[in-house]
Amino acid sequence: MSEYSQHSPDETGVGLVEKRIFTFAETEPFPLESGATIGPVTLAYETYGRLAPDGSNAILVCHALTGDSHAAGIYSQSDPKPGWWEVMVGPGKGIDTDKYFVVCANVLGGCMGSTGPASTDPATGKPYGISFPVLTIGDMVRAQKTLLTHLGVTRLLSVIGGSMGGMQVLEWAARFPDMAASAIALATAAKHSALHIAFHEVARQAILADPDWNGGDYYATGKPEHGLAVARMIGHITYLSDEAMRHKFGRGLQDRADFSFSFEADFQVESYLRYQGRKFVERFDANSFLYITRAADYFDLGATHGKGSLTKAFSRGDTRFLIVSFSSDWLYPTYQSRELVQALKRAGKDVSFCEIEAQWGHDAFLLDSPRLTGLISGHLERTSRDMARGLERGDA
Amino acid sequence: MSEYSQHSPDETGVGLVEKRIFTFAETEPFPLESGATIGPVTLAYETYGRLAPDGSNAILVCHALTGDSHAAGIYSQSDPKPGWWEVMVGPGKGIDTDKYFVVCANVLGGCMGSTGPASTDPATGKPYGISFPVLTIGDMVRAQKTLLTHLGVTRLLSVIGGSMGGMQVLEWAARFPDMAASAIALATAAKHSALHIAFHEVARQAILADPDWNGGDYYATGKPEHGLAVARMIGHITYLSDEAMRHKFGRGLQDRADFSFSFEADFQVESYLRYQGRKFVERFDANSFLYITRAADYFDLGATHGKGSLTKAFSRGDTRFLIVSFSSDWLYPTYQSRELVQALKRAGKDVSFCEIEAQWGHDAFLLDSPRLTGLISGHLERTSRDMARGLERGDA
Repeated sequence: MSEYSQHSPDETGVGLVEKRIFTFAETEPFPLESGATIGPVTLAYETYGRLAPDGSNAILVCHALTGDSHAAGIYSQSDPKPGWWEVMVGPGKGIDTDKYFVVCANVLGGCMGSTGPASTDPATGKPYGISFPVLTIGDMVRAQKTLLTHLGVTRLLSVIGGSMGGMQVLEWAARFPDMAASAIALATAAKHSALHIAFHEVARQAILADPDWNGGDYYATGKPEHGLAVARMIGHITYLSDEAMRHKFGRGLQDRADFSFSFEADFQVESYLRYQGRKFVERFDANSFLYITRAADYFDLGATHGKGSLTKAFSRGDTRFLIVSFSSDWLYPTYQSRELVQALKRAGKDVSFCEIEAQWGHDAFLLDSPRLTGLISGHLERTSRDMARGLERGDA
Repeated sequence: MSEYSQHSPDETGVGLVEKRIFTFAETEPFPLESGATIGPVTLAYETYGRLAPDGSNAILVCHALTGDSHAAGIYSQSDPKPGWWEVMVGPGKGIDTDKYFVVCANVLGGCMGSTGPASTDPATGKPYGISFPVLTIGDMVRAQKTLLTHLGVTRLLSVIGGSMGGMQVLEWAARFPDMAASAIALATAAKHSALHIAFHEVARQAILADPDWNGGDYYATGKPEHGLAVARMIGHITYLSDEAMRHKFGRGLQDRADFSFSFEADFQVESYLRYQGRKFVERFDANSFLYITRAADYFDLGATHGKGSLTKAFSRGDTRFLIVSFSSDWLYPTYQSRELVQALKRAGKDVSFCEIEAQWGHDAFLLDSPRLTGLISGHLERTSRDMARGLERGDA
C-alpha cells in the first residue's frame, strides 16, 4: 500500500477514530453452532460516518483472517497507523463515509478486543486457551447481528468483505436474507478447497509443534513465537502468487553480492518472510489463529444453508450481489467465485461479477485499485438509489 | 503408485538389488564450490543391468530432494519395498535394464548412505551437524562423476532425473558437456522461482524453530521430529496441486460423519498430511533436508555456467535433450521448462519437449504414465541407435 503513504490520513481519511466495545450474553450465554455456549461476549468495533435518521445508509465491513476492527482512520496523532482498508473507507472513497455509516467489528474468537481464546474465562478467572469453544463463521455473523441491533441498525445497505470477510458476507446473505440490500464478496469462496485447508492445517501444526504452545496454556509462560511465525510465513506465501513473488523478489539477494553458503536469509524472499513472521508474533495470538482458521475451514455455505446446494442456500431474500475475484489469486481462485455466481444466478439473484486482472495474488483485494473502488462505489450508489425508490431489485 | 502394487517386483522388476558404497577423497579432500573441502566422501549407490563391453549403455538416474540410491528392485524377500522409480526402471520398462546399465547414487549431503551432515566428521569423531559445508548441485554432480569413473563409465548414454534430479541432469549437461549423449530432465527448472525458495525457506524455518534441532547437534539427544514433520507437510502440499487435492480429498472427512469441533484431523487432507509428516521423520535427517533444499535453491544454471545466460550455459557439447513438464505441476510450472527449451534451441541443441496433461501436480513425474514411459524409451532407443551409427545428433 505504498500509494497510501504518500498522503497523511488526516487529509484524506476519516481522521481520528475510537475503538469501542460492546458486551452481551452477560446473563444468558450465547449459543454456538457446535452446541456449546459462551458468555459474556465482548466485541470490539469502530464506526465511521453517521447513521442516517431513516437508517438507510449502514454498511458492515467484515475483516479477513488476521484483521481487526480498525478498518480506517487513526487512533491518535502519536499512533498514526491507518486502518487496514484505509484505501477504501473514508470521505469520497469507494466506501464513502460522507454518505454511509460504516461499522467494522473484530470477529468473535479474535484477539483484537473481542472475546477469544486469550480472554478470561469467567468460570476460572484464567484465559480460556484451548477450552474456548470451536466456533464457526455463522457464530461470528450472529454476534455481529447482536452488535448491529445494539447500534440501532435494523437493515444494512450492504455487507462487504474479502477473503474470510467475504465468507461472512455470504453467511449474512444466507442466514439473514432480509437484512442486507447488498452483499459484496471479494476474493472469497462458498467453501475452502482441500488445498486451502491443507495450508491452514500445516500452519496450525506449526503452532501445535512449538513446545511453548504448551497445550494452549501459554499466557503466563510466553507465547509460541516460533510456531506462530512459521504459520504466518506459510500464510504470506499463499497471499502472494508465483507472479507476484517474481515481480517483488525474483532471486534477488538481501544486502549481499553473493551467497553466504550458510542458512542466513540470503534471498530477499527469505528475509521478507522472516520479517513478516516476526512482526505477526507481536500482534497476534496463536490460539486465535487456530480458532479462526478452523472456522474458515469448516465454512461450507451450501452444506449449512442449502442441504448441500449452494443455489438453495441463496434461495431466500432480495439481497443483490457483487462478486469480485482477482486473476492471480490462487488462494481463492476465480473458479470459486464463478461457482458462487452460477449458484446466485440459478437462485434468481441480481448478481454482478468481475475478475480483476491483478498480479498481486490474494493480497490484491486489500491494495489500492481504481477498478475495485469504482465497482464498489457504483454498486453502493445504485443500491442506495434503488432503496430510496423502493426498488431494491433490477437496477437497469 | 497404486498401479504398481498389483504385481510383485519379483515378476516384473529387476529383482534383488544391493546397496553398495564407494569412498573417495580419503587422502586429498574434495573441494566444494563454496571454497570449503570435505573428505573422505562416501556415496551409496545401486546399479541395475550390465555395462556393455564398449561402455555405450550407461545411464545415470538422479534422484529428487528426499530420494535415495534405491531406484528399483528390492533388497530382500523380507524387505519387499520397491525402489522409488520401479515403474520406470526394470526389464522391458521405460529405462530397460535388459538393454541399459543404470546407476543411481544418493546425493552428497544426503542421509541414505552418502556423506552428509549426519555422517561422522573425522576431525572430531562426532556427526558434522551444521558444521557440514553448504554444498551445491554442482558439488553433487562432481561427486557422481567420481563414482562413474570408479565404475568404469567414461561416457553416458543418458543422464535422467526429475525435480532436483532434473537440476542435476542440467548441471551434468552444462558442466560436462561431452559426457552424456542425452539428458532427460523432467518437471524441473534452470533455477527456482521466488515462490519455490519461499516454500523451502518456510520448511527450513520449521526445522530451525524446533528446540530439538538444537543448533543442528541433535544426534545424541533426539531429532527435531515436530519441525521436520511440518517441513514435510509443506512439501506434500507443493507436490500435489489444487486439482489433485480436489480429486484425492475434496472436503471429505476422515472416519467421521461430522466435524469434531476440535483440532483433531477432521478432514482427510489433514489426516494425510499428518501421516506423511510422521512417516518422513522415521526415514529422513533434518539437517540433510536443510542442506539439500539449500543446494536446490542456490542452483542457477545460467548464472553458474553462462555468466547469466542460460543459452551460453548450454553452448558446449552435443548432448541432446528431452524436456518434460506436467500440466498441473505448480512447483516446476511448464513455463520454466519452456524457458529451458528456448535456451537450448537458441544454443542450437537438439531438444524435444512435451507437456504431459496430468492432474497429479508435481508428483506426476514419479507416477506410472505410459506417455512418459514411451517418451523416455523412445528417446533412449534413438540416442542409442544414433550413437551406434556414430551420429549423436539430428535424429530424423
